[in-house]
Amino acid sequence: MMLERRPDCRFVIFGDEKQVLPLIDQHPKLKAVTTFHHTEVSVKMDDKPSQALRYGRYKSSMWRAIDATKTGEADVTVSAGNTGALMAMSKFCLKSMPQVDRPALAGLWPTARGESIVLDLGATIGADARHLVDLAVMGAAMARVVLDLDRPTVGLLNVGVEEIKGVEAVKEAGRILRESNLPHLAYHGFVEGDDLGKGTVDVVVTEGFTGNIALKTAEGTAKQIAEYLRAAMGRSLMSKIGYVFARGAFAALKDKLDPRKSNGGVFLGLEGIVVKSHGGTDAIGFASAAELGYEMAREDLMAKVREMVAASTRPELTAAQPAETE
Amino acid sequence: MMLERRPDCRFVIFGDEKQVLPLIDQHPKLKAVTTFHHTEVSVKMDDKPSQALRYGRYKSSMWRAIDATKTGEADVTVSAGNTGALMAMSKFCLKSMPQVDRPALAGLWPTARGESIVLDLGATIGADARHLVDLAVMGAAMARVVLDLDRPTVGLLNVGVEEIKGVEAVKEAGRILRESNLPHLAYHGFVEGDDLGKGTVDVVVTEGFTGNIALKTAEGTAKQIAEYLRAAMGRSLMSKIGYVFARGAFAALKDKLDPRKSNGGVFLGLEGIVVKSHGGTDAIGFASAAELGYEMAREDLMAKVREMVAASTRPELTAAQPAETE
Repeated sequence: MMLERRPDCRFVIFGDEKQVLPLIDQHPKLKAVTTFHHTEVSVKMDDKPSQALRYGRYKSSMWRAIDATKTGEADVTVSAGNTGALMAMSKFCLKSMPQVDRPALAGLWPTARGESIVLDLGATIGADARHLVDLAVMGAAMARVVLDLDRPTVGLLNVGVEEIKGVEAVKEAGRILRESNLPHLAYHGFVEGDDLGKGTVDVVVTEGFTGNIALKTAEGTAKQIAEYLRAAMGRSLMSKIGYVFARGAFAALKDKLDPRKSNGGVFLGLEGIVVKSHGGTDAIGFASAAELGYEMAREDLMAKVREMVAASTRPELTAAQPAETE
Repeated sequence: MMLERRPDCRFVIFGDEKQVLPLIDQHPKLKAVTTFHHTEVSVKMDDKPSQALRYGRYKSSMWRAIDATKTGEADVTVSAGNTGALMAMSKFCLKSMPQVDRPALAGLWPTARGESIVLDLGATIGADARHLVDLAVMGAAMARVVLDLDRPTVGLLNVGVEEIKGVEAVKEAGRILRESNLPHLAYHGFVEGDDLGKGTVDVVVTEGFTGNIALKTAEGTAKQIAEYLRAAMGRSLMSKIGYVFARGAFAALKDKLDPRKSNGGVFLGLEGIVVKSHGGTDAIGFASAAELGYEMAREDLMAKVREMVAASTRPELTAAQPAETE
């Protein structure tokens, strides 16, 4: 599927030969551009990261796939496996970029205007001002590559209630971003939860706890409304007839809401690109995740992140004392 | 509107006689059950709480309406005014309940199963374990009254990524709730963002920053999908014909998604009930908020909150050292 759209891509696949090779054999075109490596160990979906690291380090398919990005055999790693284990192994194998303390998980968010990038979706919990600035810079680098923008707009997620105006760290990060006036990042200011769907900015920055909950709340709301719509269309003969006439419209809506299209979270801040596909997706969804990885590798996301992180850590910025969240 | 459904309710209205009296005069039935008090000062929508308190204390329509609940002239205060000012004046005038440090803003969340109560929606930012337990107890009291449940289920909002499992305060609050095994509250455990729409539990507890962002994210997503649906139905002649047939279904869907139906946030933890209506709502929305207040007053929410807070602060609970969020 992806090969048809991206004929120049090559695959390196790690897995159990008994399970994977018969599948590859069914697709001669894929086979022609694939290097396969047999691995004996695979990481289970519900193991803790520490467990997975213990039995899977150096020899599991997951570790070997990450390591291929490190050795240069691959440009990007794509996995639909255990998120926690993937993050732990990626950190351990690829290491963090200098100047970035903690990695982030970034995702594409479908909006009324197109797509935005939202991070952190749960890689780390809690953030001081410095980490929020790192997220802004890394998210903007990703937006340049994935959304093809020269100077993406960046907003900090905050609450709009006047008397409280959010945590100290968010305010401090806003001050740093405003004052630093970076060349490849246009700081917009604070945004609220409903700005996510509106697409008010190209990059929405928040710490991982809130980001994860916002993402799952939006997914849950979308499912809930789809359910309401299904129930409403099935309630009478008239509505069923209407459904038949408007079939094309419903197909377009379904396509628009298809979560497979924005499948693929990206670990940022490591010395290599790792894309996490949703575990429950199908071939279409996995191809989206792989294609996202392909694009980021082709446009050299790593170089852009490095350049922007370096530009953001000029002396006057690091001198600013980051405030802790309460 | 509300009077038709609740013929035994009485109104005390505060405002500028030049603006309000002509409106009341148009509704003789309303006039018959209304006591009107003229006030010279009104709180502006965009003033800071501190400003509003300075010029509006004792004499603004907002203050007088809150004070009416304190003196007993009214059983509940309903306002569509400035949220921050309403919270500040409510705290100042009504005072917090003993044993409750900080008030909360609770709201009704439409779910696939009916309705849940979610709090805190942004009254205070950050929460230690003790405050999360207070939120659970107050939310459960509200669920008993509004959702008519004897022992509502309560979940703590958390992130599901295995390696991090959320902040310390959330884990500690979970431990306290599980061990205390309160008579009118069934602790369910952690829930995630998508459980809000599913209605997995009757009461969802989170601190105000995350709660506010989850609420606005869900509202934004609902609007975004409604927009997609509108665009899809208008895209071709066939879909427009389909729309005509399915008009009834779309009306039902619109009704289901009508934000006016769940209008009304409730300040909990004060010595009186204050309902905050959305500022941008209309008569239908404001009537929903007023009716919510009516129900809570009739079922004596205050007594239930007091009883449950007292039960939850038995020595073995207060002895537990609450952990601070990071």
